[in-house]
Amino acid sequence: MQPLSPAFIDQLCFDDIGLIPAISQDWLDGAVLMMAWMNRTALEQTLKSGQVHYWSRSRQELWHKGATSGHTQTLKGIRYDCDADVLLLSIEQTGLVSCHTGARSCFFAEVNQHSQGDSLTLPPPMDACSELFRVIDQRHTTPEANSYTNKLLEGGDNRILKKIGEESAEFVMACKDDDAKAIANEAADLLFHLQVALAHHGVNWREVLEVLANRRGAPRRN
Amino acid sequence: MQPLSPAFIDQLCFDDIGLIPAISQDWLDGAVLMMAWMNRTALEQTLKSGQVHYWSRSRQELWHKGATSGHTQTLKGIRYDCDADVLLLSIEQTGLVSCHTGARSCFFAEVNQHSQGDSLTLPPPMDACSELFRVIDQRHTTPEANSYTNKLLEGGDNRILKKIGEESAEFVMACKDDDAKAIANEAADLLFHLQVALAHHGVNWREVLEVLANRRGAPRRN
Repeated sequence: MQPLSPAFIDQLCFDDIGLIPAISQDWLDGAVLMMAWMNRTALEQTLKSGQVHYWSRSRQELWHKGATSGHTQTLKGIRYDCDADVLLLSIEQTGLVSCHTGARSCFFAEVNQHSQGDSLTLPPPMDACSELFRVIDQRHTTPEANSYTNKLLEGGDNRILKKIGEESAEFVMACKDDDAKAIANEAADLLFHLQVALAHHGVNWREVLEVLANRRGAPRRN
Repeated sequence: MQPLSPAFIDQLCFDDIGLIPAISQDWLDGAVLMMAWMNRTALEQTLKSGQVHYWSRSRQELWHKGATSGHTQTLKGIRYDCDADVLLLSIEQTGLVSCHTGARSCFFAEVNQHSQGDSLTLPPPMDACSELFRVIDQRHTTPEANSYTNKLLEGGDNRILKKIGEESAEFVMACKDDDAKAIANEAADLLFHLQVALAHHGVNWREVLEVLANRRGAPRRN
């Protein structure tokens, strides 16, 4: 990303101590990684360097995120909201670790309907395709009895790829029937089996998202 | 979602005027829709009703989001961050409109590297697959000369679906070669053509994500 013009900073509403909240979001799967605060200097440094800087409220100092841990955040884009008092940063997180606890996201604690104040440690919510891949990859790492995914994985390429052929044919037929509901269902089936094949070959869904995102940035044929 | 236990509220750090920021995120494509504030009552009402309530700082009153506009937010999940001073809500947005301006997300203003304070009105950042579908759907609505997507769309099912067969075969071959880079590239190609078929049949990528997310919630075979 080229350095951004800092002119828009004058349109922002900083609070009475000169801060504005900044939400950082993964550029590929939409995961919300953290929310921290920026002052004008932090924002200017972020725009100038392309690396995210915050204002540390606890240490009362400019905070170049990742300067000591190595988990820097590379800026891909910035939005502000309709009131111009919140920033949304699209970022690439070095090492896929944003939180000081070592977690990918600071939002690892989920409120569980069965808990009485307890929480589970979880990856952050992602788009539904990335969530599906997480489950498939879990089955790959930790097989479960009676899991359809594990049955496919145990059969290896020949079992999995046969399903790719079958599901693509079913998708084609649903399109030929112009049956919207069947088209969505068959697309989901094809995606599921595609992801099983990826997991089997140790290719992360994120790598596919990265191919798509990089094509979008590059001069493209579509 | 079942009503959540409010016990975790005691662990949260509300600020000195009793508020905590709450980021709302689409449950399917990860788009960040808005950031607003909650007090204890707003959070309790949210947990009790399953509909998101905020505290309106401008009106100084409890705000049942969408009560007048109809654009309510149904709660799908809640997380809090490592400092317990920010909430992340996973929500289903009625009507796909969160912002009072009528936009899907409050974050419609992007800082552009070429602008001097100007901003563009855009949909919020989503996962890379959803972003790709947005571009394809745009080409479908507003064709562009020399667009490969438009060439496919003009050819209709027979041109598009032939590519589904071709790309699945290429994906199968890349798997048989166990070539990680080719696998990611062929998966991306197959996805692209799958999305062109969806656009051609007026099926939104979101519908596919919804099928996947609903399967995850239901008793499932994987």
